[in-house]
Amino acid sequence: MTTITVPPSPLSPDEDANKLRKAFQGLGTDEKTVIEILSHRSAGQRLAIAKAYAHLYGESLLERLHSELSGDFRKAVMLWTMDPAERDAKLANKALKRKGDRDLWVIIEVACASSPDHLVAVRKAYCSLYSSSMEEEVAQSFSTVHPLSKLLVRLLTSYRYSGDHVDSELAKYEAAQLSDAVKSNQIGRDDVIRILSSRNKSQLKETFKYYNENYGKHIVEGKHQCKTPRPKWMAAKTTLSPTRGQIGSDGSGKKAPADIEVIDKSQFTTLLKTAIWCLASPENHFAEVVRTSVVGLGTDEDSLTRAIVTRAEIDLEKIKEEYKIRYKTTLRADVIGDTSGDYKRFLLALVGSEGP
Amino acid sequence: MTTITVPPSPLSPDEDANKLRKAFQGLGTDEKTVIEILSHRSAGQRLAIAKAYAHLYGESLLERLHSELSGDFRKAVMLWTMDPAERDAKLANKALKRKGDRDLWVIIEVACASSPDHLVAVRKAYCSLYSSSMEEEVAQSFSTVHPLSKLLVRLLTSYRYSGDHVDSELAKYEAAQLSDAVKSNQIGRDDVIRILSSRNKSQLKETFKYYNENYGKHIVEGKHQCKTPRPKWMAAKTTLSPTRGQIGSDGSGKKAPADIEVIDKSQFTTLLKTAIWCLASPENHFAEVVRTSVVGLGTDEDSLTRAIVTRAEIDLEKIKEEYKIRYKTTLRADVIGDTSGDYKRFLLALVGSEGP
Repeated sequence: MTTITVPPSPLSPDEDANKLRKAFQGLGTDEKTVIEILSHRSAGQRLAIAKAYAHLYGESLLERLHSELSGDFRKAVMLWTMDPAERDAKLANKALKRKGDRDLWVIIEVACASSPDHLVAVRKAYCSLYSSSMEEEVAQSFSTVHPLSKLLVRLLTSYRYSGDHVDSELAKYEAAQLSDAVKSNQIGRDDVIRILSSRNKSQLKETFKYYNENYGKHIVEGKHQCKTPRPKWMAAKTTLSPTRGQIGSDGSGKKAPADIEVIDKSQFTTLLKTAIWCLASPENHFAEVVRTSVVGLGTDEDSLTRAIVTRAEIDLEKIKEEYKIRYKTTLRADVIGDTSGDYKRFLLALVGSEGP
Repeated sequence: MTTITVPPSPLSPDEDANKLRKAFQGLGTDEKTVIEILSHRSAGQRLAIAKAYAHLYGESLLERLHSELSGDFRKAVMLWTMDPAERDAKLANKALKRKGDRDLWVIIEVACASSPDHLVAVRKAYCSLYSSSMEEEVAQSFSTVHPLSKLLVRLLTSYRYSGDHVDSELAKYEAAQLSDAVKSNQIGRDDVIRILSSRNKSQLKETFKYYNENYGKHIVEGKHQCKTPRPKWMAAKTTLSPTRGQIGSDGSGKKAPADIEVIDKSQFTTLLKTAIWCLASPENHFAEVVRTSVVGLGTDEDSLTRAIVTRAEIDLEKIKEEYKIRYKTTLRADVIGDTSGDYKRFLLALVGSEGP
C-alpha cells in the first residue's frame, strides 16, 4: 500500500524533466519544485523522467541532483530517484563495507523484505555495479563468522515460491524443529537456517503461528503491544550451536586465523529476529527502524531515510499503523519532530497523511 | 556455438504451425516434417511456433506432440520444443524425485553449466510448476546428507558475476585454500564450497590454473587425453571434512535420525568434479555424459537426449571437438551406432555435421 499520492493526470516525463531542469537553473535550486515533482511520481514514472532528462539535456538526472542538492535531503532524493534494484544494491554494498550491527539489518532487509523477483534484480544490479556477486562478498566478508555467514548467504540467495500454498503438517513439523533448536540452545543450527531461508513466506507465517500456539504464549515486545506478535521463540533463552572450531584454520598461508569467530549470541539472536520479522511482518521491523532512528539524542538520518524511501511504495501505510499501535504516536509526528527543512518536507511528502 | 542450422529465410511461425498441423492430421504422423521444422529453428523461433500453434488451433503444441509421437523420439522432441527454463526445471524435478547418482549430475548441470540469468529463469519456472522452490526441495531432500546438501544448495542459488574480471592474487590465495583442503583430507570443507559456489567462472578457471601449476602436475583422465585437463586436485586422495555428528538429531519428534548421513567419499568427489567441470569446461562434462550413455550394453537414452537437447544451442560444437580428442571417434558416429529411426534422425539434425 503506497503512501505517495500521484496526480490523476501527471505531466509527461518530458514535461517533468523540463520543470526539473528549470528548477536547477539560475541562482540557487528550486527545491520546492524538485520535491513537488519527484515525491509525487511512482517508481516507473521516476525512471521515465530520468530517461527523458538524459535524452533532452545530455546529462544524468542523478548527477545533476547530486550537484544541486546537499546533505540528508540530497541522499534521500537520490535514493528515491534511483532504480529500486540499483538503490538496494548500493545500500547493501555500503552496509557490507561498514559491517556494523545496524548495517547487517540492511542486508537482511534486502534479503527478507523483498519479493523474490526484486531480490534477483538487486543481485543482478550488484554484479553490474561491483563486478562481484553479493553472496560472494557476504561469504567472503563473514567467512570466519559462524553461523552468521551461512544465515546471510542463504537468505540472500533464496528465490522463494511466492504463492499462498501452505502445508499445515509441514508447519507443525518445522515448528517442532524450531522449538527443539531453542530448547537445545542451538538457534544457529542448520535446520533453523534451512527453514528460514527456503520456505515461502505464507508457510513461515503458519509455522510461527503453530510455534506460538504450541510452544508458549505470545511474546509482547518490550512495553509496547505489537500488532503482529514477535514469534515467542525469538525471546527464549537461546545460544548458538556448539560449532566452534568446526571449520578450522583456512590453512592458506596468507591469512590463517587460529580459529573461527563465533558471533556474539545476543547479536545473532537479534539478527535472526530481524530476519523473521522481515519475512513474516516487515511492517514491525520497519516501524522499529524508524523509531530507533528518532529516539534519544540525535537522529540516525540514514536509517530514517532508508526505511521511508524503500517502503513508501510497498507497505509504509502498514508501518504507520503499526507505529501508532506500538509507540502511541504517529510516524509523521516523529518525522516532524526530528527533521527540518527540505529534508523534512520531502520525507513528509513520501509519508503522506495520517489516518483519522 | 550452436550446431543446428536455421534456414536463412525460415517460414513464419504461422506457416510452420500450419505445416506441423498438417503433419499431425490424417492417418499416422508425418515425423519427417516434424523433424524438418523443429530441429531447424532456434529456441526463440520454437517458442513463437508453439504460440502461433496454440493461437491458430486452440490446442497446445506440446500436448499434440505428446499424443502424436512416442518413445525416446517423443521425449527428445518435447524437451526441444519446451521453453528452455521450463525444460530444465522439469529435468531437475525428475532428478530430485529419483535421486540416483546420475540424477545429481542433472542438478549440478543446471546449477553450474547455465548462465546466471538462465539459472534464475529455471528457478522461477520451478516455483511456478511445483509451488515450491528448487533449493527448498534440494535442502529438504538432502538435509541429512552432509556436506552434499550444502554444496548443491549453494551451487543452485548462486548468481555469479558473469564478467571477465579476474583477481590473480585471489586466485593464488584460493588455489592454496583448495590445496590445503585436499592435503588435510577435507574436501567438503566450507571454504571449498564457498569458493566453488560464489566465484565467477573466469576467476575459478584462474584458480584451477594456479592449482595445477603450483600444487602438482596435470591429471590425464583415464587413457584419454583431455583437451582441458581436469584440475589435479580432483584426483588427489580426498576425504570429506570430519563433520559427522555436527548437526545432531533434528529432534522434531516426527522423524529423528540418530545421526546425519555422511555421503560416500568417492561419490562426493565425483560430484565435486562434475561441478568443477560444469563450471570451468562444460564441454568435458557433456562429452563424458554422451560417451557414458552409449558405451557398454544398451544406451542411456535419457542422458543422451538431455546432453544433446540442452547443449545444441550452447556448446555442442565444442563438445564434439572434445569428444573427438578424448574418444578417438565422433559424437555423430556414436549417435548413429546407438540409436535408430526418427529418434536417430532427430538427434543427428541437432548434432549437425562433423568437421573435416
